[in-house]
Amino acid sequence: MAVDWTERQASRLAGMKASEIRELLKVLERPEIISFAGGIPDPALFPHAEIAAAYQRVMASAQHRSMALQYSVSEGWLPLREFICEQQNQGGLGATPENVVITSGSQQGLEFIGKLLIGAGDLVAVTRPTYLGALQAFAPYEPRYVSVPVDDEGVLPGALEDAFRQNPKFFYLVPDFQNPNGITTSLARRRAVLALAERYGVPIIEDAAYTELRYDGEPLPSLMALDAERAGPGAGFRPRHVIYAGTFSKTVAPALRVGWLTGPAEVIHKVVLMKQAADLHSSTINQIVINDVVRAIWPELTARLRAAYRIRRDAMLAALNAWFPPGVRWTEPAGGLFVWLELPQDICATKLLERAIGEVNVAFVPGSAFHADRSGANTCRLAFSMVGAEAIDEGVRRLSTLLPR
Amino acid sequence: MAVDWTERQASRLAGMKASEIRELLKVLERPEIISFAGGIPDPALFPHAEIAAAYQRVMASAQHRSMALQYSVSEGWLPLREFICEQQNQGGLGATPENVVITSGSQQGLEFIGKLLIGAGDLVAVTRPTYLGALQAFAPYEPRYVSVPVDDEGVLPGALEDAFRQNPKFFYLVPDFQNPNGITTSLARRRAVLALAERYGVPIIEDAAYTELRYDGEPLPSLMALDAERAGPGAGFRPRHVIYAGTFSKTVAPALRVGWLTGPAEVIHKVVLMKQAADLHSSTINQIVINDVVRAIWPELTARLRAAYRIRRDAMLAALNAWFPPGVRWTEPAGGLFVWLELPQDICATKLLERAIGEVNVAFVPGSAFHADRSGANTCRLAFSMVGAEAIDEGVRRLSTLLPR
Repeated sequence: MAVDWTERQASRLAGMKASEIRELLKVLERPEIISFAGGIPDPALFPHAEIAAAYQRVMASAQHRSMALQYSVSEGWLPLREFICEQQNQGGLGATPENVVITSGSQQGLEFIGKLLIGAGDLVAVTRPTYLGALQAFAPYEPRYVSVPVDDEGVLPGALEDAFRQNPKFFYLVPDFQNPNGITTSLARRRAVLALAERYGVPIIEDAAYTELRYDGEPLPSLMALDAERAGPGAGFRPRHVIYAGTFSKTVAPALRVGWLTGPAEVIHKVVLMKQAADLHSSTINQIVINDVVRAIWPELTARLRAAYRIRRDAMLAALNAWFPPGVRWTEPAGGLFVWLELPQDICATKLLERAIGEVNVAFVPGSAFHADRSGANTCRLAFSMVGAEAIDEGVRRLSTLLPR
Repeated sequence: MAVDWTERQASRLAGMKASEIRELLKVLERPEIISFAGGIPDPALFPHAEIAAAYQRVMASAQHRSMALQYSVSEGWLPLREFICEQQNQGGLGATPENVVITSGSQQGLEFIGKLLIGAGDLVAVTRPTYLGALQAFAPYEPRYVSVPVDDEGVLPGALEDAFRQNPKFFYLVPDFQNPNGITTSLARRRAVLALAERYGVPIIEDAAYTELRYDGEPLPSLMALDAERAGPGAGFRPRHVIYAGTFSKTVAPALRVGWLTGPAEVIHKVVLMKQAADLHSSTINQIVINDVVRAIWPELTARLRAAYRIRRDAMLAALNAWFPPGVRWTEPAGGLFVWLELPQDICATKLLERAIGEVNVAFVPGSAFHADRSGANTCRLAFSMVGAEAIDEGVRRLSTLLPR
C-alpha cells in the first residue's frame, strides 16, 4: 500500500499554517501595486560593494577560502561572535563568545527558543499584537498563549503581572519599534518588565530585530543590559532573566541568513546542541562576509539606513495626516519599518485588503495574523520600508478613498 | 529570583547530547595527528575558482544581487530545484519543483523529517550501525529505536520485516556507501526494502549524501527511482513510499549549507511550512552560486572527486591489508569516505582511541556512537577523505602497532 503521509504525521503539524504575509508576497509582484505589505528591507540600501568585496577577498586566499567553505563549529565564526560581544558589552553585559551562538537569522533563534523551553500545552506570554514569525517559530512545540495588551509605552505592567501569575514558560517581546505596531517599550516599562521577571522567575525573550533603525531620540538600553545593571557589579555574564535575539537581516542583508542569540553560557551551550542537530552550522562564508562588512562600516552603514528609512517614515505619517479620515488611529513609530492602523471597529481589514488590491492597487497586511488570540480584525500593518516617499503619499491617498468619511 | 533555566527546559532536551565526532574535531587541530576522524570532504578538492567566479557574477549585476541578498521563498531558488529535478528524473521520478524543497544541508532535511513524523515515544527503524547525525536530528522529537542489522549487501530483509511488524513511523537508511560503514545496499536488497515498505505501509527515508562518490561499478538506482518503477507508468510524481535527502556538501562545498528533500508534493508542502517557521529560507546567494557551479561543471566536478578519493580508498585498503593483524575485519567500500573496522570482541574502540591519540598520534571515531542501541563497542570508523595516500599508510601502520597479534 502507498504510505498515508497525513496519517503518519506528528500531532505538532496541526498548529502549523502558511504565513499569510509570505503567501501575500508571492502574489504581489505586479508592478502596478504599491505594496505596504512586506516587512522587508530595501535592497537598494544593502552595502553591495562591501559585500561583493568581502566575498572576493575571502575567496582570493587559499587559507581563508578553505575555512570559509568547509564544515565549521556549530557555535559560529569566532570573530563575528566577538564583534557581537563588543557591541553588546557597551551595555555592560560582561559577555564573552561563549554567551553567543550564531543562528540562520533571528527566526532560527526563535525556533530554538521554542525547542528549548516549550513542551506541548505550555503557556507562553506574548504582547497583543506580537510578531507573526515568532508564533510560527513556536507553533511546532504546541504552546498555549496568554496575550498581554500594550499601549503607546509598551506592555501594560498590571496585565503582565496577571499573566506571570499563571507561570508562563517565558515572555516574548520586541521592545524597539515592534513588528507589527512600531511601538517602543519605554524605559520605565522595561524596568517594570524586569521587576516582574525577577519576582516571578519568568524568562524574557528580547527580540531586537529593529533596534539599529531608530529615527528619533536616544537609544534605550536593552532589557538584557538593564538586567545586567540590576544584577549589580561583578565578574562574568550578569543578566539572569533575558535571552536576546539579534540579526543582521535589517542592517546588512537578509539572504546571508546570519543572526544570533545572546544568553547565559549554560543556555547557549544547549542551543549549540540544537544548532548541531538542526543544520550543523550557519554558512561559514556568509558569517565571514558579515564580519568583514560590519567591522569595516558599521557606524556609517547604520547611519545611512536610519537617514533613508526616516524619510519614508516621515512621508507615511505626513500622508496619513493629510489623507486619512477621523476615526482611524495610527502609531507614530520612533524607528523600525512599520506603522499600525486601528480602523473603526466595524471595518474588517481583510475585506479592506481585498478591495485595496482589487480597486486601488495597494497592499498591506491585515493585523489579525499578529494576534495569538486572533483578535484585531480592524487593524492593519503598513510597512514603509520598500516604497519611495512619493509612492507612499499616493498609496496612502488611494487607500483613504476606501475608508468611510 | 534568577531564572532556573534547567527547570524551565522542555523534556526533549534530555535526549540531546553533544556529538562525539564534533567534540573530537575540536581537539584534533594538532598538526602531528594523522586524523581518520572527521568524515568531511577535502577542501583542496572544492571547485574554488568556479565558486569565486559565481559570487562575483551574482554581485556584479544590480538585478541579480538584489534578489540574491533579499528575503526569498521558503521553497528555495527555483532554477536549483529545476536542476535537482533534471538530475533525479534520469531515474524516472516525474518530479517537478513542487516535489523539492531546499534545506540547509541534508542535516536540516533530517531534522524536518523528525519534526514531520516523530511524536514522543514513536518507534523509528534504523540500520545497525546508522548515521550519528540522523540520531541527533531525530533526538528532539523523542523517538524510540529498533536497530536492524546489516551485512555486506545492506540491511537484512528478515530482520527488517520483524521491525516493520512493529509499525515504525519510518525506516531511515543510507543506501550508498553508508556513513559509518561504507556498505552499499544491493539492488536485490533495495527491491526487498521497497516490497516491505509497500506491504507494511512504512515510509523510507533515503539519505543519498555520498551517492556521487562511487569508485567501482555502475551506479545503482535510488530507492526513490525503484519505487517510481514499481508504481508503473503514469503522469506526475510516482514514488509513493520514499522521501529522499540530498546535499551539495560532499560535491561542491559544505559551508554553503545547501541540500534538499525530494518527496510527494503534499509532504514537501508541509516541509516548506517547517522551513518558513525554522529559518524562513536557506541563503539565497549561496543557492544561486551552487546552481551556477553545478550547471557549469557537474560531470567534470564529480569525476574529479571520484578520481581523487578513489586513490585514498585504495591506499587505505592496501594499508589495512599490509599492516593489520588477523582478527580485525573491515569493509571494502565501493565509494564514499569511510572504512569500518570490527576489532576482536574484547577490544574497546574508545580505549583504543585514547591510546592512538596519546601514543601514536592517530585519530578515528569509535563506532558505538553510530549505534542507536549503543552496541558496537569494538567498532571504528576510519575516514580516508582528508589524508593523502602516504599518510594513510603511515597512520594505519601506527594504529596497527596498538593491536594484539
